Amino acid sequence: MQDRINAFVPGTSVRIEGKPGGPLSGLSFAAKDLFDVAGHPTGGGNHDWAKNYRVPTAHAWTVQALLDAGATLIGKTITDEVSLGIFGESAYDGTPLNSAAPDRVPGGSSSGSAAAVAAGLCDTALGTDTGGSVRVPSSFCGLYGIRPTHGRVSVAGLMPQAPSSDTAGWFARDAATFARVSAVLLQEAIPEALPTKLLIATDAFGFADEALAAALRPMVERLSSLLGASEEVLMAPPGLSVWGRAQRVLQPYEAWQTFQPWLESANPRLAFTVARGLIAGSQVTQEERNWANLMRQEVRGRLRYLLPAGTILCLPTTPFPAPLRGRSVPDQQADRDRILCLCAHGGLAGMPQVNLPGSMVDGLPIGLSVLGGPGTDATLIAVAKAMEEKR
Amino acid sequence: MQDRINAFVPGTSVRIEGKPGGPLSGLSFAAKDLFDVAGHPTGGGNHDWAKNYRVPTAHAWTVQALLDAGATLIGKTITDEVSLGIFGESAYDGTPLNSAAPDRVPGGSSSGSAAAVAAGLCDTALGTDTGGSVRVPSSFCGLYGIRPTHGRVSVAGLMPQAPSSDTAGWFARDAATFARVSAVLLQEAIPEALPTKLLIATDAFGFADEALAAALRPMVERLSSLLGASEEVLMAPPGLSVWGRAQRVLQPYEAWQTFQPWLESANPRLAFTVARGLIAGSQVTQEERNWANLMRQEVRGRLRYLLPAGTILCLPTTPFPAPLRGRSVPDQQADRDRILCLCAHGGLAGMPQVNLPGSMVDGLPIGLSVLGGPGTDATLIAVAKAMEEKR
Repeated sequence: MQDRINAFVPGTSVRIEGKPGGPLSGLSFAAKDLFDVAGHPTGGGNHDWAKNYRVPTAHAWTVQALLDAGATLIGKTITDEVSLGIFGESAYDGTPLNSAAPDRVPGGSSSGSAAAVAAGLCDTALGTDTGGSVRVPSSFCGLYGIRPTHGRVSVAGLMPQAPSSDTAGWFARDAATFARVSAVLLQEAIPEALPTKLLIATDAFGFADEALAAALRPMVERLSSLLGASEEVLMAPPGLSVWGRAQRVLQPYEAWQTFQPWLESANPRLAFTVARGLIAGSQVTQEERNWANLMRQEVRGRLRYLLPAGTILCLPTTPFPAPLRGRSVPDQQADRDRILCLCAHGGLAGMPQVNLPGSMVDGLPIGLSVLGGPGTDATLIAVAKAMEEKR
Repeated sequence: MQDRINAFVPGTSVRIEGKPGGPLSGLSFAAKDLFDVAGHPTGGGNHDWAKNYRVPTAHAWTVQALLDAGATLIGKTITDEVSLGIFGESAYDGTPLNSAAPDRVPGGSSSGSAAAVAAGLCDTALGTDTGGSVRVPSSFCGLYGIRPTHGRVSVAGLMPQAPSSDTAGWFARDAATFARVSAVLLQEAIPEALPTKLLIATDAFGFADEALAAALRPMVERLSSLLGASEEVLMAPPGLSVWGRAQRVLQPYEAWQTFQPWLESANPRLAFTVARGLIAGSQVTQEERNWANLMRQEVRGRLRYLLPAGTILCLPTTPFPAPLRGRSVPDQQADRDRILCLCAHGGLAGMPQVNLPGSMVDGLPIGLSVLGGPGTDATLIAVAKAMEEKR
């Protein structure tokens, strides 16, 4: 079954028992192959990466935290190469199965982690989200997934990409497991109290496919009645594509800074699209960066203004369900850009976001996201629990 | 021994006996893995290339011509990835040995063919020269090598790169073998008569390292006395770097045109530097191409003016001997650009050029090139023979 799912990095075998008696006893987890596991090379989705780095001698903070809490690590999962990719099709390790939609991509870059959880191979799995890499596969595979507040969950022992946007997140199939794991990794009890006001991002719903927006409406109504008050707002007054553009300046530039020493010393092999993304980063001008940094400031200000304590915002996690597997590079490009417009606020503003599964369009999973102010991660988990109980 | 030389594509094994009784009976040859050999995939130096193309059912014209003339094919040789590379260090197959300078690169992209001949594994080997890929390894390894007149030797069955500059060439250790093979592939007897005038390209000698230019001086004097008359000329009045720039516009643009369908359908893995070169090609503007095409016209005109019948020109094949193996990407870049300035006229003007070995600097081989007008290929071979007889 695992072979058909193709969630784990081919040729790897990792199993580390969790400490007995912890709050996650009995749970199993997998870690994207960007997380250090002591004694095992961190592959990063590229066959020339591990050659240049020593085998880690310590676990990533998140891996250690889950083991300490009693969860058992059962494998390292396939990732888009050096975490650059949003569809989950790896030139090296193939495409993990999207169990809910077998002819569709799982979404990336945390593709194997999402696939492993979706297929029931483990209870939870660690992913990373720089530009959407937990949120997108959560939406495409029909899973709970969190991108935490930037800086909230330690990224120690995690292969970096664009440090000002990098976060460690995780997936689960059900809200109860999602909450148990989240309490451990957030180091905070999941509260009972819910926010009291829901903002509905009309521009984000308008940016998504009409059928997807319509299919999410019942969830939005349920969420609205759960919280008691709702209001339609414009999330991104200059346009989601302007926010997207700012992230597509800052993230590739930082990724270039991260990987340049490796590229220039090892001249590694990269899939064409990955190389192209990194080279685009190398060509970003100071002027573009200046503009993007001002825009980042505006995004932070706008979302702080929209999201005082007690208020959360909802938006479609992705503008459409998972696309077909195996499409050509040009066919993917416009879709990728459109996905990133709905995800850019994550890296730009660093606020927490949780994907809520439960809706479908054309038989394919789609997710509704809830977004809160900095540090409201546990509250968003509470919303996920309450929404599932209401189903 | 073959393992140490690393000339042949790992995992391949090819042997096809030549027809009995031909003019090349008793000779053995190898073919760069860009040449089709019926029944064997053409790898092109990239592990994702052959997947997308059918195994050839016919030999490349040049392979067939050598077999028909009696030479025996003994293997397919390592090439820089999709023939983009000038040093001969492959991210896939490693670096073939430069037998004359084991700590140095062999030069590329016909690296394995040069290494096989230099190590005595075969008598001759087929290479390709788009921007210097026969001339440079000839110089670095101390071999005879020819870039024929553009269009003179059929490129049928050869993996293309930049068709307006692509040529099929070959290597040999001694001038007699070089002449036998050349007579077959040029389909022309090698004449006895030599040119009567030698032009010495002062700008090209000035562009090379001073020590290299000095070390070539005895060969230039020998050549000059052999021909009877010599004159110093400026080869490239606008500057060799301007010629180089024109070729660095046209060649990457054409390579992008060649490989774009493959890149966009297969999203193959490429070494970082190869991807960067192709992406640079995708970014060439119409205005740059217009300028480069005018410059190409100027180069052709200049060389036609300099090279009437009976006149040849000499220049250093490379500006320095083979650099060390394993240098970083930035360390290689300036050297690559400088090499290409001395090679650009080949692709731009399409005139034949032969590398004459026999000189050394610091114990490393260096080559003197002779360049003639279109169609003077056999005359340049005659010069090579006469120079060797005079040694």
